[in-house]
Amino acid sequence: MNVLLVYAHPEPQSLNGSLKDFSVQRLEAAGHEVQVSDLYAMQWKATLDAADSTAQPGDRFDPSRDSQHAFAHGLQSKDIELEQEKLRWADTVILQFPLWWFSMPAILKGWVERVYAYGFAYGVGEHSDSRWGDRYGEGTLAGKRAMLIVTTGGWESHYAARGINGPIDDILFPIQHGILHYPGFEVLPPFVIYRTGRMDETRFTEIGDALGQRLDDLAHTAPIPFRRQNAGEYEIPALTLKPAIAPGQSGFSAHIK
Amino acid sequence: MNVLLVYAHPEPQSLNGSLKDFSVQRLEAAGHEVQVSDLYAMQWKATLDAADSTAQPGDRFDPSRDSQHAFAHGLQSKDIELEQEKLRWADTVILQFPLWWFSMPAILKGWVERVYAYGFAYGVGEHSDSRWGDRYGEGTLAGKRAMLIVTTGGWESHYAARGINGPIDDILFPIQHGILHYPGFEVLPPFVIYRTGRMDETRFTEIGDALGQRLDDLAHTAPIPFRRQNAGEYEIPALTLKPAIAPGQSGFSAHIK
Repeated sequence: MNVLLVYAHPEPQSLNGSLKDFSVQRLEAAGHEVQVSDLYAMQWKATLDAADSTAQPGDRFDPSRDSQHAFAHGLQSKDIELEQEKLRWADTVILQFPLWWFSMPAILKGWVERVYAYGFAYGVGEHSDSRWGDRYGEGTLAGKRAMLIVTTGGWESHYAARGINGPIDDILFPIQHGILHYPGFEVLPPFVIYRTGRMDETRFTEIGDALGQRLDDLAHTAPIPFRRQNAGEYEIPALTLKPAIAPGQSGFSAHIK
Repeated sequence: MNVLLVYAHPEPQSLNGSLKDFSVQRLEAAGHEVQVSDLYAMQWKATLDAADSTAQPGDRFDPSRDSQHAFAHGLQSKDIELEQEKLRWADTVILQFPLWWFSMPAILKGWVERVYAYGFAYGVGEHSDSRWGDRYGEGTLAGKRAMLIVTTGGWESHYAARGINGPIDDILFPIQHGILHYPGFEVLPPFVIYRTGRMDETRFTEIGDALGQRLDDLAHTAPIPFRRQNAGEYEIPALTLKPAIAPGQSGFSAHIK
């Protein structure tokens, strides 16, 4: 299959750089086609602004409206178009990054903001009082799979159910649910590497074995069972869970079957 | 008091631009000193990289180690130093931004990543098996207050306890707890404006009244009672809540008294 690896680390000679090289080799050895968007190497423009469209600037920049216009009329800047083409080409998309301040690095956040155009990743499908667009399980990227590879210096216990940073699944929910499931991806469980400051050859080999297995299993790993917006479980347009669905539950986990 | 407003929206003639102007006027009218870091207007460099230090580049860029070296030896790039000075000067810091893909805009995330140097916002205090640094309630910015002003196009119900996006308090937890409480801030409840696509003069006046009240009350609003790392409630170094603290609770909310 076709795999797009979107990678955000500034140093090729880093743990992240080694893991990226490992993943590319493993996937290619298995016969997959691989493209890498190495955002730092590409000097990816992180900041969404009026220059993201080649249209004549209006008197006032509106991020959504101007994105919609540029996407609909072929006026997007070239770097955005190329990334959208890669997303269309891919069967599976991997985002790989170090967890900085409990989210993705700014350069990757800016990739999401700029590539996820209105009409491409949001504002897709009918928006009315009975249907709130094609999103959360439907949309342009439906039928594709996505997975995170994340490194962090903290210990696994710091990200446990009662760990001080909050549970890793909750920290990643806005990305896995809000950025990946939203435009349609099926999201596989993340591959998280803790305590990166304690790395040696033995541990790197163990991590490679585990990551390699995950990459070998990409096509048949069960995705996180996020609920679908338009499958009858949510009130529309309030978009709250219907009373009969997960009664008494609230928070992020209520949106997982 | 001294108020720093860190503001991230690309268009001055926007709701966010109007709210920023409103806040500055209200705070100055009350006798406060106000500084604004208007990140788009400053063309803030969003991407953390080796150029953030004036030191001779080593053979390999390490974000933490090189940040520590640059901070300790006065080798940080000037734009980072200036923002750190503003943070030291401020009694209260407000971050104002539109919620893009369930987090802050990349330009603001990059402000955090670059300004929050090792030795300034993390890596502060003793790190040992009995003390895990001055963080989560202690640190360089202890004694200061912080607050978010956030706009979103979604409805309030979409961000409710059972809303499809997840509860707004959980979406903002990695920012309020992980970015603000971490280096020491007391964090006030956020001011969130929903459904920004439906704005008229009446509603803007109502929002101004409510926001103005929050700004008038900055000094005596009760902060979110996040637990402090070093107050005896966490096991060290596992950094999980002790069994007697919030027994049976887990997730983000367990870290709020």
